[in-house]
Parts: sequence; structure tokens; C-alpha cells
Amino acid sequence: MLNKTVKPELLGGFRDMLPREAILFQKIVAVIRKVYESFGFVPLETSGMEHWDVLTGGAENVEKSIFTARIVRGAEDKNVVDETLDQRYTLRFDLTVPLARVIAAYPDLPKPFKRYQIGRVWRGEKPQAGRFREFYQFDFDTIGSNSILADVEVIQVMYETMYALGIKNFLIRFNTRKLLNGLAELVNCGERASEMLRIIDKMDKIGMDGILAQLQRMADNEYDESALAFSAAQAATVQRFLSIRGDSVEDIIAQLKTLFAGKSATGDSGIAEIEAIVATLRALGIPETNWCFDLSVARGLDYYTGPVFETVLTDMPKLGSVFSGGRFDGLTNRFMPGSNIPGVGASVGVDRLLVGMQKLGLVTATETVTEALVTIFDQSNDELRKTSLQCCTKLRNGGIRTELYLGDDYTLRAQLAYAQKKNIPFVVIIGPDELQQNKVQLKDMAQRQQRVLTVSECFAIIRSSY
Amino acid sequence: MLNKTVKPELLGGFRDMLPREAILFQKIVAVIRKVYESFGFVPLETSGMEHWDVLTGGAENVEKSIFTARIVRGAEDKNVVDETLDQRYTLRFDLTVPLARVIAAYPDLPKPFKRYQIGRVWRGEKPQAGRFREFYQFDFDTIGSNSILADVEVIQVMYETMYALGIKNFLIRFNTRKLLNGLAELVNCGERASEMLRIIDKMDKIGMDGILAQLQRMADNEYDESALAFSAAQAATVQRFLSIRGDSVEDIIAQLKTLFAGKSATGDSGIAEIEAIVATLRALGIPETNWCFDLSVARGLDYYTGPVFETVLTDMPKLGSVFSGGRFDGLTNRFMPGSNIPGVGASVGVDRLLVGMQKLGLVTATETVTEALVTIFDQSNDELRKTSLQCCTKLRNGGIRTELYLGDDYTLRAQLAYAQKKNIPFVVIIGPDELQQNKVQLKDMAQRQQRVLTVSECFAIIRSSY
Repeated sequence: MLNKTVKPELLGGFRDMLPREAILFQKIVAVIRKVYESFGFVPLETSGMEHWDVLTGGAENVEKSIFTARIVRGAEDKNVVDETLDQRYTLRFDLTVPLARVIAAYPDLPKPFKRYQIGRVWRGEKPQAGRFREFYQFDFDTIGSNSILADVEVIQVMYETMYALGIKNFLIRFNTRKLLNGLAELVNCGERASEMLRIIDKMDKIGMDGILAQLQRMADNEYDESALAFSAAQAATVQRFLSIRGDSVEDIIAQLKTLFAGKSATGDSGIAEIEAIVATLRALGIPETNWCFDLSVARGLDYYTGPVFETVLTDMPKLGSVFSGGRFDGLTNRFMPGSNIPGVGASVGVDRLLVGMQKLGLVTATETVTEALVTIFDQSNDELRKTSLQCCTKLRNGGIRTELYLGDDYTLRAQLAYAQKKNIPFVVIIGPDELQQNKVQLKDMAQRQQRVLTVSECFAIIRSSY
Repeated sequence: MLNKTVKPELLGGFRDMLPREAILFQKIVAVIRKVYESFGFVPLETSGMEHWDVLTGGAENVEKSIFTARIVRGAEDKNVVDETLDQRYTLRFDLTVPLARVIAAYPDLPKPFKRYQIGRVWRGEKPQAGRFREFYQFDFDTIGSNSILADVEVIQVMYETMYALGIKNFLIRFNTRKLLNGLAELVNCGERASEMLRIIDKMDKIGMDGILAQLQRMADNEYDESALAFSAAQAATVQRFLSIRGDSVEDIIAQLKTLFAGKSATGDSGIAEIEAIVATLRALGIPETNWCFDLSVARGLDYYTGPVFETVLTDMPKLGSVFSGGRFDGLTNRFMPGSNIPGVGASVGVDRLLVGMQKLGLVTATETVTEALVTIFDQSNDELRKTSLQCCTKLRNGGIRTELYLGDDYTLRAQLAYAQKKNIPFVVIIGPDELQQNKVQLKDMAQRQQRVLTVSECFAIIRSSY
């Protein structure tokens, strides 16, 4: 049946998490899950594959690179089952569209519906350093609430998450799309607002001059739909908006009020949103060192309609946002036209966050979670073996993660080397002398210290080492 | 961009887990994870897709229905990237083959390597009731140990898992492939042993007569390779083996010794394995009501070479095994011919287990994990709103999962109805009177009782309700 030697290789853009990394990943996930649940978010799981139309909204053309799947039986003949465009297995590329499907499919779910979801998503983009074709998202969202308090709660969750992870130097930056849409009203650019947004989003890369040039670029030919051909006056308004700076939120808001001057209802409601968010954050006493209103935050996704959020580790500005989100008020519309069910939430990039925390020394990798290794002194001695086994059970029943040595080399040297390699802090040795005294020998691997103790004493020492 | 109304439907064979189910699923996973870790198993994550050859062992033909994927950009033109047989994205159908790849790819991993992994797998078989195309596996395995104690540990983990989940009526049945292979030696059927095994595995369906008939069936034509054409004497030996019954393990082993009578080294080593397993289980004091040696346990998978295990809920015999595994000693051979790295472990079918536990009433579904809902008395009253927000933070900081009401209907009736629908046990109401007294009103939803309390008293009552 096995015809050739296969290389144990991964596909490009895919990866493993070996225990050193997976242990940390689990810990971070557990901490974040606890924060999400403390705010009343509950778990949801959706299928990894969906109908093509569900994920793309029935678009005839998508700009994303998407994984689609089919069922194959046999290798050579590639007998493909079920391949039609209607019934095409399409791998999810985020957890937000599947959430919208759930909301539409189960209308009886009590609202506001607060859910979190952790799961893998797949994207076909060319892999790069730190960008994979398969990665985790860990989202939370509140669906069915128009309250600004739901938006504030996103910032609260971000703050509590960072805090619970032991991260102190972080900044939650927020803005609202309504201010950007208000700007679009001000310059009267109609349907081309999203094109304007895309250009504004390039500030970091092309600077103000580049932005002004791109905004005023004329069409090369009649098919060139992306050219905005802004007038000098339009470009100047954008420049004025992007140049707003201030020492305080109040300062910035005052300038925005001058700029909009009642000429954009959307802009005005954006200002009101920011004022409400800031007032609530202050009422909650969330330190102002950890948040800021920032007009340059736009977030790329098309579907945001209100406040947008991102979180950066201030000690690693180049890492980018580790926790981002926003308000989206029309995501279920592809399933229920005109439903306009409001939603707001965010997604933590666990992989990226883990990279950041490792570089900042906020987590330490270990090979194992085992606290004690119980050795086998002589595997042919039934009585000694039994005592080792029973000692494992006793420690384990007391809540200590305990491994029995299962290697094939029963020399004490090999057993200690195993504990060393796996960073197991304690080794329990039971030889004929200890057996006779009804005791064990406890070796503290870090202290290089060895003591003869009862199992209870041994238990107490391991327990107290935390 | 959105051209049509899309139906919010799932693909056939796929499913969602709404919060009621996902909350239970999370709880069960957390309990199992804790047991796995208590034995020193550590998490591993592998990619959801692998090379075709990695998963199939380079077989030219596979009998399984496998999902393969490709990258598509745009809908109509189906511009397919990267589609070759060598670079075909293939979705994993179990977690064991990916584990073998990891062992081969990272030879420096300290051995014995003890890992657990939870993840989704995909199979293209026709969906049926309770059989999905996407489901979870939750495996643990010890790689690189020849010790029979590693096999015993599988039974220990199964026992501790069931116990930790609150399941009392379960039976762990085990056997060893060596006894079945010994039988093949005894009847001298050479390479056709696996065909014999497949026939024996049908005992439940076709009975002893059916088995004897199939074993003796002659080939219909020269291409009919599955016909074993056993002689009457060969068939009689199989019958004798399958008819062994006994009141005790010792009884069955005595009969096996008579049957093998030193004529099969493999059979003899199978007997020794069972004796060692039984002696160790007794030394550990694992109740004999929860395990039994059973010659009819074969487990379908080709790759098992030694002990095999399965776990049934005795109150639901038709559910099938919820936790199964065995020893496999050649799984890395497709990557490293002749390496013969030993492995032993098992996989819990979490979905099936959850179905069983729900039917047996061992778990109770709830809509949420929230312990307290804090209402908003008057959303236009800044002071009251602020007090509600701060009350949430206080309860949350004390470890109580607390939701602030975020619905759009601010009547008290609507807020209480929300708590009712979500099974939230406590509601905290803060109106002008309570605000003035610096107190809150705590409503116990089950008791239909309402009391005016300080936040601290309120906290103590919610905390003590567990």
C-alpha cells in the first residue's frame, strides 16, 4: 500500500504549532475567553466551509483569493463529486460573514446576541513573513444593539483583555466612519467615498502630498473608474481634515465642529458618537494612557459603518494592530435585504499577539505543562513499578500534573535527562530504600537538590512552588 | 456589489453549534484537556491542510472520500492557482497522520513525545444522521514508548476522563491485535490476515455462521483476491477462537494458552500483553466494573499493531464507542522507511459524547454563561447610566460574569424578558431611589424575589448561589 517515501513537509503558507508555542497559545486563548465570558459573550461554532454565495454575497467577481474544496475519491482518476457553482465548498475567510449567516438562519436567537468565536480561517493570498494562508481569528460581537454602550464595551473588552494578559503598554485607538463619511459629504464625492477612504488609508505610506496628488488624479481613459479627479477645493478640505491635531479630545472635536459647521449630518452624528464614547470611558475610569481618539484610524474593511477600533502594543509599533474591530450595520442584508441588523465587535489576532508577547518577554516558553516526573527504578521489579504508578495517581489526584517515565532507557541518567529536556521542575525517585521506608526521593531540578520525603510532604513542596 | 438575496443555508453534512450546544462543548473540552494535561500530555496544532502524499502515504488510489482544495480568484472565470497533484491542498481526515508527519519533520522533539490535539477533520462520505463531513477529534498519543505502561495509561486516561465528566456507567473494552494476528499465524493465512480481520469484524452483523461461510468462500474468478478459501480446519480454528468465553480474564487467558499452545509467538506475546495490562490495572485499583478484556474488540483501522481500546456508555449501548484507540508502531514509516517509531493513544468523539451526555441528562443546556444582568433604568439619565456601568465593573472585577443591558427597548419589562430568555439567574436594577441610597435592587429570577442591597451584599449572594 505504501509505495514511496513521502517528505514530511507542510504546504506553503501553512504551519504547525509545536508544544512550546501551542502551550502559550492555549494560555492566551484561555485568558481571552475568560474576559469575553465575563462580559456575557458566549461561544458559537460555525462550519469551516460555506456555500460560495454565502461567503461572497453572490458577487459575480471577488477580489479575494478564496479556497474552494471538492470531494475526491482515488488519486489518479480524480473522480470529483458535487462540483457545481451552487454547491461549491468554500472555506471561510473570516468569522464575521458566517456570524451574519447564523443571525439570518436562526431568527429566534435572543437579541442582543453576544457571541465569541475562535476558529481557523483560510485565505489564498501569497504567503509572506507573518502572513499565512491558514490562521486563527478570535472574535467577539454584539448583534442587535444600537446602543453606543455596545461600542464602548468593545473598548472595555480590549482594555480588560490586554490587562488580563499582563500587557501594560498598549494603546486602543478609535475613530468613527461617520466622520470619514461626513468628510465625503463635505467634499460631495458621492459614491466614490470608499475610493477616497482607500487613498486616505495610505497616509503612512505616501504622505500628505501623495494623498493630495492621488485625490486630484484625472482619469487616464474612459474605463479608469478609480480616478477621483478632485478639484483643488475638494483636496484642500481633505487636507484640512487630515491635518487636525489637538492636545485633547475636546480640542480635536472643536476643530471638527468648525470644519463640518453643520454642513454634514453624518459628520455631526460622528462627533456625537465620539463625545459619548469619551464621556463613558471617563465615567468608567479607563486610564487615558490606554486609549485615544485618532482621526487617522480607518480600518480597511468595507462593511464598517460607525466606530472603528484598533489596539497597538506601544513597545512594538511596527507589529500593527493586534486587536481590531468596529460597528457594521448591514451585514445580514445579503440574506435579508433591508434588515439592517446592527453589529459591533472586534477580533484579536492571537498569532500576532503571541509573537509580540514573546518578543516583549511577557511569556516564557516551556516544553511541557508537567510539574512532576515519577521515575521507574527497576522496570522488572513489580513492587517498585507499582509504587511508582500509585505515587503518580496520588500526586495527580491532588491536582499536580504528573508524568510516569515511559521511555525505553530505564537508567536514572536517561530519566533525569528526559526531565531536563522537557523542563519538568520536579523528579520523584522511588528505589528499594525509599520503598522500605515508605518514602520517596524528591529532586528539585532547578535547585539540584534531593530530599527523602513522604508522598504528602513531596506533594506540599511541589504545590507550594507556584 | 450585492446582487441577489442569498439563502443563509449550510452545506450538506456541515453544521453550526449554537451557544446552547457550544457552551456544553467548551465545558467538556475543558474537562478533557485538564485530564490530558494531568498525565503530561501537551497541546500540538497542525495545519488543516496537508500535501496529498502526506495524507495518503503516496498511495495511487485511496478508498476514502477526501476533500481537496484549490485557490480561486473571481467567481465566473474560476481562475485556479497552484493546481497540480504534487501541490494539492488536501484537508486532513484525522489527526494521527499529521502527528506522524510532525514526528518525522521535527526529529529533535524529546521522546517519549506526549501530545494532545483538538481539531476539525473533514471527510467526504455521504452525510447521515449523526455523521458529518466536518467534525472534531480530540486525540492524545504517546510517541516513542514501547512500554506496556503507555498502553495502560490510555485506559487510565479514558477512565479519568469519564470520571471527570461525571459519567459513572461506562465500560472500557480492550483487546490486542497480537491475539488476532496470532490467530492468523495459527491458521497460516499469511498476507491475507487483514482480510480475515475484516470478516471477523462483521460478527455483530452476520453472526458465526456468516463468518464461517465467508472465510471458506472460494474465488469466483482469478481476479477475486478477497476470497480466503479457508479449509474446514482453518475455519474451525477461527470458530474456536471466537467462541472463547470466560467468567474471568484468567479463565479466557487459560483457554487462549490452550489454543495457541506455543504455536504462535505473536499470540503468546499478545497473551503476555493482556496479562501485563490486567495486572497493572489491578495494581492501580481501577474498578473492574469499568474495564474488560474482550476478544471481539478489533477496531477498524489498518494501522493498529498492539492493544486496542474502546469506551461505551453502558446506558446507551447503541451509541457506539465514544473514546477509542490503540497502539500503532509503523505510522512514521511512510516518511522514514523502517523507522518503526512506536505510538499509542486514543481519540474522544466529543460530538458523540455530548449527544450521549445530553440524552442521559448528565449536562444541562443554557443560553448563556452570564450570572448577572445589570439593567439601565433610564438611558437618558447620565448619572444612572454611569452607576449601572460602574456596578457591572465591580461585579466583573469580583469574578462574576456580568452583562450590561444593551437592547434598544429600555422598559424594565423588556430587560427582564431578556434575562428570562437567556436564563440569566440574577438581575440588578438601579433606579433613582436605589441611587440615592447608594444601593441596588437584586432580583433572583428563579425565586422571583427582589431585595434592596449594597453592591457588596449583592456580590456575596450571587457568588454563594453556586
